Amino acid sequence: MKFARFSYHGRTHTGVIRQGEIAVLSGSLFTHFEETGESYALSDIKFLPPTVPTKVVCIGLNYYEHIEEIGAQVPEKPIYFLKPPSSLIGHESAILYPKGAERVDYEGELAIVIKKKMKDVPEHKTMEYVLGLSCFNDVTERALVSKNPLLLTLSKGFDTFGPIGPYLVTDLDPNNLNIRTYLNGRLMQEGNTKNCVFNVQQILHHLSTWMTLLPGDIVATGTPKGIAPMKPGDVVEVEIEGIGKLRNRVE
Amino acid sequence: MKFARFSYHGRTHTGVIRQGEIAVLSGSLFTHFEETGESYALSDIKFLPPTVPTKVVCIGLNYYEHIEEIGAQVPEKPIYFLKPPSSLIGHESAILYPKGAERVDYEGELAIVIKKKMKDVPEHKTMEYVLGLSCFNDVTERALVSKNPLLLTLSKGFDTFGPIGPYLVTDLDPNNLNIRTYLNGRLMQEGNTKNCVFNVQQILHHLSTWMTLLPGDIVATGTPKGIAPMKPGDVVEVEIEGIGKLRNRVE
Repeated sequence: MKFARFSYHGRTHTGVIRQGEIAVLSGSLFTHFEETGESYALSDIKFLPPTVPTKVVCIGLNYYEHIEEIGAQVPEKPIYFLKPPSSLIGHESAILYPKGAERVDYEGELAIVIKKKMKDVPEHKTMEYVLGLSCFNDVTERALVSKNPLLLTLSKGFDTFGPIGPYLVTDLDPNNLNIRTYLNGRLMQEGNTKNCVFNVQQILHHLSTWMTLLPGDIVATGTPKGIAPMKPGDVVEVEIEGIGKLRNRVE
Repeated sequence: MKFARFSYHGRTHTGVIRQGEIAVLSGSLFTHFEETGESYALSDIKFLPPTVPTKVVCIGLNYYEHIEEIGAQVPEKPIYFLKPPSSLIGHESAILYPKGAERVDYEGELAIVIKKKMKDVPEHKTMEYVLGLSCFNDVTERALVSKNPLLLTLSKGFDTFGPIGPYLVTDLDPNNLNIRTYLNGRLMQEGNTKNCVFNVQQILHHLSTWMTLLPGDIVATGTPKGIAPMKPGDVVEVEIEGIGKLRNRVE
């Protein structure tokens, strides 16, 4: 199923895609929901991030060709960092180019949304804790972190540096999905999640041995090769097979 | 005023300290509250973290003598990292020593709790956005981050690695407070927040130009010199003048 969170005339809703429209749901995706009977045209809604997480955990250095591209070493265990939830924006919202920024890169990624409280879960059971998948753009001020690795959090943490959406999609195999990023319509990144150093089950198992994941939490699984800077006026799109295309303009 | 968040017979409350007891409040510390007339003995309550933040921002390398102690350089701008809210625990809750950990350090710190939404706020107005102050322990698995600086988030992000409390105290000058950390009753860290590289107003101004801070968010302001490892069975206390003493056992 394909869900979205959105606002319509100032009210926030969750909906499910039905024949090109969005059917409004009552209840919660995490427990129980049903259709209300109302539906809207997709062109009339404002997409919001599909979840309101308590944390956004990102994996660095998870595609072999991207590791080579930035001259890093293949990690033995997943490398994590956090983005603040205040960085999240939805599909078609603007990425704000920070004052004084020197190089702002896109990073197209597959995002996992957690369904239920998760701690110390073995690999083969991790998918029971996944609500669905979405497209994510781990926007990064590369100049800052290149000057000083201690500035990683800052370089990733600006408001609007976490576009996610448009949809949250259930029942997909996360480890065999084509992922592409386009800048102004030109294909810039092309990869498949099967080429990750750590697959989704390995990441979720490992992460859950360190910290408790809660319903709605987001885990972004790293970016393939082909990162490059964006300028104000550019349009960036992250497309994942079976999920859709997340589109944002830089302003 | 001296507030605490706590549970009593399984229900969560906010209260204010009155003559050695805690008087239960209704409403919200962030908007409007009043006393309900009920009060409990402090010995009967379980302290919770005084706030439920959307993010926990920590400042690294903010006391000159600590920078010297770990052989780092004085930063030109504040260095930030995030701890996941899942790491927070209250006064008298246990710090769980992770399986396989090699060196788990305390780091006593002053924490700021944000009162209202804050973006691009000039230095001289930042204190209007502060609800109060608390004691914080930025527990760190030092061996991980010493081996690989990219493991910083992991080393700080374990469940229970963010003790905070017991109280949230208003109307204190944050830039002239004695701070002490004790391990099994022995004084290990002693500093004063006036010896920080960046004071609270500078940090909040700078941070608010990068990301939106929201009501309840926590900003921890760095640790003085004297960090050292803890073992299971140890008791660690962070004491700040005018706030109180945050006490946690390692298990």
